[in-house]
Amino acid sequence: MAHYSTGDPIYALATPYSPSALAVIRASGDGVISLLQPLFSSDLSRKPGGSAVHGYISDKRGRRLDEVMLLIYSSGHGYTGEEAFEIMCHGSLPVIRSISAALEEIGIREAERGEFTYRAFMHGRMDLTEAEAVEEIVGARTERAGSDALERLTGSIRREAEAIKEEILDILASVEVQLDYGEDDVPDEWVFPSERVSRIIDRLDLIASTYTSSRLYSHGATVVLAGRTNAGKSSLYNAMLKENRAIVSSEEGTTRDYIEADAELLGIPVRLFDTAGLRDAEGDVEREGIRRSRTLIDEADLVVYVLDGMEADCYPDGERVLKVRSKRDLTGLDSGLSFSSVTGEGLDLVINAIADRLKGDELPSSDVPRIDSKRQLDAIKEASSALRDAEDAVMMGEDVVAMYLQSALSSLSALTGEVTSEDVLERLFSSFCLGK
Amino acid sequence: MAHYSTGDPIYALATPYSPSALAVIRASGDGVISLLQPLFSSDLSRKPGGSAVHGYISDKRGRRLDEVMLLIYSSGHGYTGEEAFEIMCHGSLPVIRSISAALEEIGIREAERGEFTYRAFMHGRMDLTEAEAVEEIVGARTERAGSDALERLTGSIRREAEAIKEEILDILASVEVQLDYGEDDVPDEWVFPSERVSRIIDRLDLIASTYTSSRLYSHGATVVLAGRTNAGKSSLYNAMLKENRAIVSSEEGTTRDYIEADAELLGIPVRLFDTAGLRDAEGDVEREGIRRSRTLIDEADLVVYVLDGMEADCYPDGERVLKVRSKRDLTGLDSGLSFSSVTGEGLDLVINAIADRLKGDELPSSDVPRIDSKRQLDAIKEASSALRDAEDAVMMGEDVVAMYLQSALSSLSALTGEVTSEDVLERLFSSFCLGK
Repeated sequence: MAHYSTGDPIYALATPYSPSALAVIRASGDGVISLLQPLFSSDLSRKPGGSAVHGYISDKRGRRLDEVMLLIYSSGHGYTGEEAFEIMCHGSLPVIRSISAALEEIGIREAERGEFTYRAFMHGRMDLTEAEAVEEIVGARTERAGSDALERLTGSIRREAEAIKEEILDILASVEVQLDYGEDDVPDEWVFPSERVSRIIDRLDLIASTYTSSRLYSHGATVVLAGRTNAGKSSLYNAMLKENRAIVSSEEGTTRDYIEADAELLGIPVRLFDTAGLRDAEGDVEREGIRRSRTLIDEADLVVYVLDGMEADCYPDGERVLKVRSKRDLTGLDSGLSFSSVTGEGLDLVINAIADRLKGDELPSSDVPRIDSKRQLDAIKEASSALRDAEDAVMMGEDVVAMYLQSALSSLSALTGEVTSEDVLERLFSSFCLGK
Repeated sequence: MAHYSTGDPIYALATPYSPSALAVIRASGDGVISLLQPLFSSDLSRKPGGSAVHGYISDKRGRRLDEVMLLIYSSGHGYTGEEAFEIMCHGSLPVIRSISAALEEIGIREAERGEFTYRAFMHGRMDLTEAEAVEEIVGARTERAGSDALERLTGSIRREAEAIKEEILDILASVEVQLDYGEDDVPDEWVFPSERVSRIIDRLDLIASTYTSSRLYSHGATVVLAGRTNAGKSSLYNAMLKENRAIVSSEEGTTRDYIEADAELLGIPVRLFDTAGLRDAEGDVEREGIRRSRTLIDEADLVVYVLDGMEADCYPDGERVLKVRSKRDLTGLDSGLSFSSVTGEGLDLVINAIADRLKGDELPSSDVPRIDSKRQLDAIKEASSALRDAEDAVMMGEDVVAMYLQSALSSLSALTGEVTSEDVLERLFSSFCLGK
């Protein structure tokens, strides 16, 4: 477990450790610019924050290490909120190594994973949902996942949580007024605002419900093509890969029992498997292949079962099963999900149907912030459940209602990280990539 | 073959296409900042060159793509000398893809390899040796190779070439004075300054001679450990890897006939092979292994032959052979190159001897610019050879001497790229990495 602190000078390589045109090494901490000054060829003392300065970095003994652009940030202006700098140097491995060594020599230590973002959070530069979005945006595999994460980075969840907290605080205030009056002289006009609480619960549930489809766009789904040998699975497989503009790899399974590849179907990252045909196996090897295909099918998010032309449909239906028919050019079917690998007819339709099925009942509303973190989901569910408890407790007295409302508030505070244990923070940030 | 131009707007990803904290996308060309303005959230028109500006990049339809730091360079100030910018965005693959697509939409095309440096060269921001150094610094595998390249990047060869050209021009002027006087009235005091020309030739030869050791530090050497089975090769192999602080990989040869790994011996990148023992093979597989070891030995830059303790030395001597003895703890030898894998005695000595042998007669002088390019070597050799021709032509008349001096000058102009065909330039720059 990483142990984070704030203020002491840290550095990290923020770009991949691989030869390229440029690399960026960032550093943050009190006085970090004056620490760097002896290694840098131009005077930094008069440069305002946000300056980009051209110059040379040397080591302590004056040996020039590289020609660089240096970005300096005064306290309160950079990513972490601390005094900070970024060195844009040549993307050369020995240059990166020697600059790193030179920074360590002047007392700047290598950062832990996520330590820059931890500091940004601790200094109030972002709330916890925005901090999580930083890592989500880096790891995003599709544009959809990236733009969802960017929404969160710009505070969509923070703003929503604050608005909801305001509402709950308002309700809580009116409950507490009752407590002050005492049991006898409660003004008649006060009633528990059930409708208002219900609306908040609905809103929280709506946000919670975005989790599944967010995960779909960020983490993707597994789709398995099944069906008899020669039913047309491979043509569909190829069409799905062709659709995809960001194929990562297409490799044969080591045991030749299935082929897998990464595809993107209408914004959803899909791990696509083409299984061995499901028929009675003759040899041992083939039997093993079919056994493996069955395991894949059991674990898939969606099984696309390809019926061979007019083949009788004996495959069990299921929530995770989508059936399509091949050989449309021979069968002449033009209704339902059928395609022809010869004419290409129906392929787009089938691919759209697969994407639709994966999406399920996607929410059309665009004003709902979308969450992609189990931690956030749990906090929102806790808040929603505390509000339900408050509703149920109306007959038990205002003090119980107030307690549940307080509990909902603290769940929402945990969501944005206003109240969070050091332990939770360290677990969260230590899963970040280096340099973040 | 790439076709370069200057001025029209280009962009490229300058960091590796791999998820990480940050990525840098750079762009260059006339009016490139105004082109970007509609996609950027803050007003760029009043920002001076060298500013770092925080903001959001959107696509043409206003969809936000990322939160970024933007560095802007006015014409004459950036890497290429053209108006330019660098976008420091999240190191997210979909973000990189969507920003690239947005730049193309506004008419910024993807750069060819080396096109940024080509422009820097064409706009006089660097000479050709400095441009070559850019790519050498990126590809450097050791700090030594990196710092040699940095020397070149800061103009060590350009300055040297200019000084030598000044000298030759001076000599040429005095020769041309003779031509003007005509044959009859040559002033008596004039003689061909042979000593001065010799000194220039020596200097050029000295620079040319740095090529071999520069290549050694930049491209490395192959070292093969040979000797009988159990002679102690593996202990030496491991000690050499331990010495190394930048092991890239250590993998078994696929046919189990040798092991190879990358090591760094006193600054020299070494591909190190530990061969199968050279003994009479019993099985077919082993025979094949030994045949492969022999091929390795034939192609190595250095063979380190490990004699097993007091084993009689029957291995042929050679320029590419270094013999060392193992089991020093048993033999008690304390002279010559012997080591013990049990006590560790002598290992450092042996490793130093290997590095020394690879270096050969390295030049001690540090004021000689070191070259690492065949193109530069050829140009320098041509200049040196033209000066020798000039020396030899003294009896043939001043006009012939002048011609050879002119020829030496134009070789040096080709060295720095003052006179170079478009063809040579395109070949040179198209071998660069993307974003440079």
